Amino acid sequence: MQTDSSQKHIAFIGLGVMGRPMAINLVRAGFPVRGFDVNPAAMEAVAAFGVTPAANPADAARGADVLIAMVVNDAQTRDVLFGEGSAAAALAPNATVIGMSTMSRAAVIEITAQLAERGLRYIDAPVSGGEIGAQQATLSIMVGAPAEVLEAHLPVLRAMGKNIYHIGERPGDGQAMKMINQLLVCIHNAAAAEALVFAQKLGLDAKLVFEVIGNSAGNSWMFQNRGARMIEREFEPPKSALSILVKDVGIVMGEANAARHPLVLGGLTQQLYHLAAAQGWSHLDDSILIRLMEMLTGTSAAGQDVS
Amino acid sequence: MQTDSSQKHIAFIGLGVMGRPMAINLVRAGFPVRGFDVNPAAMEAVAAFGVTPAANPADAARGADVLIAMVVNDAQTRDVLFGEGSAAAALAPNATVIGMSTMSRAAVIEITAQLAERGLRYIDAPVSGGEIGAQQATLSIMVGAPAEVLEAHLPVLRAMGKNIYHIGERPGDGQAMKMINQLLVCIHNAAAAEALVFAQKLGLDAKLVFEVIGNSAGNSWMFQNRGARMIEREFEPPKSALSILVKDVGIVMGEANAARHPLVLGGLTQQLYHLAAAQGWSHLDDSILIRLMEMLTGTSAAGQDVS
Repeated sequence: MQTDSSQKHIAFIGLGVMGRPMAINLVRAGFPVRGFDVNPAAMEAVAAFGVTPAANPADAARGADVLIAMVVNDAQTRDVLFGEGSAAAALAPNATVIGMSTMSRAAVIEITAQLAERGLRYIDAPVSGGEIGAQQATLSIMVGAPAEVLEAHLPVLRAMGKNIYHIGERPGDGQAMKMINQLLVCIHNAAAAEALVFAQKLGLDAKLVFEVIGNSAGNSWMFQNRGARMIEREFEPPKSALSILVKDVGIVMGEANAARHPLVLGGLTQQLYHLAAAQGWSHLDDSILIRLMEMLTGTSAAGQDVS
Repeated sequence: MQTDSSQKHIAFIGLGVMGRPMAINLVRAGFPVRGFDVNPAAMEAVAAFGVTPAANPADAARGADVLIAMVVNDAQTRDVLFGEGSAAAALAPNATVIGMSTMSRAAVIEITAQLAERGLRYIDAPVSGGEIGAQQATLSIMVGAPAEVLEAHLPVLRAMGKNIYHIGERPGDGQAMKMINQLLVCIHNAAAAEALVFAQKLGLDAKLVFEVIGNSAGNSWMFQNRGARMIEREFEPPKSALSILVKDVGIVMGEANAARHPLVLGGLTQQLYHLAAAQGWSHLDDSILIRLMEMLTGTSAAGQDVS
């Protein structure tokens, strides 16, 4: 847990399921890290690993060279940076903000411009890989930033992720790639639910379906990951809350709709997520889509018709 | 190429992209194989590997212990077995027919009953893994048959596939599992096309998208396999013709519709395949769905709007 004083000082905001292991991995890589989360228990959990607790985002940011925001969305990112006791104002001169939450490209472009006015740089850096990727520092990080800014922060990013992709120079290029990923994630999750419920209807053994598809052309990362949770019916506590994919598919469809670019599967998929959220399931694991499909099709978990 | 005379004699009908390497792998495993295909060139291609050419299905079947049908659909399977100069009548007493094409459960149940009247057994054994799986004998084979019938034919199946799954005892259980797989295959292929075209619209580099998604949660077997062909625009000659997935999604939706079981993504996906087929693309590779998505969205390959 020794920190190297020549290392960049990092403020880490958002110590949830993803942020917690990411902050710990930065400490392990030798970076001095001050962390903040609105939930005091989250700060306590990382303190034992060497993350210094802060009183608020500005306190965490004081004199830091890098601020990493791993919060829920663009509203929270803006609030961290420009809200009461602005973290942006507390940062060291020429500091860099790394925004790792999934947001719209428009939000990223706006935040980048606001930071530039203060002489601060922004790295657009959403991630993929989930809780396991965060824990094992094997996240895929999709970067939209000038090459030299990325270059200067590679050690920071490499402490959290395995594949650091330079998607483009423009702010929002990282989010553009993340949108493509989330479009597929959302469709594949819904497809897994639809397929598993149809398999129940056909009287197939769910665990055998899981095994066979895993070795067949119908496989997907989501089928492997969420399909397992669908079969085990582990919806609570959520490993990845439905609300996150509802937000993500909303960002994807918002961008597509603004460009009047048709996404036929994406559009239907968004409605499926809205149907699930309308059941009051936003706080449950996103594998809850299997329950939605059972409800929509009148199929029970045992493969018998409900009606 | 030495054959073991104690081995089961095999008639192999259908020496196309899949059947050709499967028949060759049976010869390599020591089985005497007589092959037939309506295309003489296909028979010539396997003769060099030790598959004895036959004049017709009945000629291939004469005295054989096992007949393997790797044809396009149930109509061709019926024709092979019960058509002119019936192959079923030519088989050895107590012989077994292994049907490896994708068909409806109803067709399998009917064929099984017809064979039983002649004292012949049927193994419902559709596959997944494509041309590469067929070549490397790594196919997944999904078997619906009584355990003892499967047991007696394991060496035959193991010569062609790596994962031999006993899905259930009933004829059609193998096809039920295959339907689940094909439902996902068809959705994932369309999703890959939709995502890649949206990526073009967002100005992302297609090869980078392919790499990033391959290491992210949006990945699927189909994205890896067909996505590569979509980017390379290798539609002709087809590695897997669109007509096959049009047929397969038709079998899936036919079964679901007969049971009045809603498949919301499956239903939309079927229409996408019909849209592509309606363009006259049935003979092209099924990765042609990217061209459909470009057409539907007015997006050109270069990422510029057509209009």
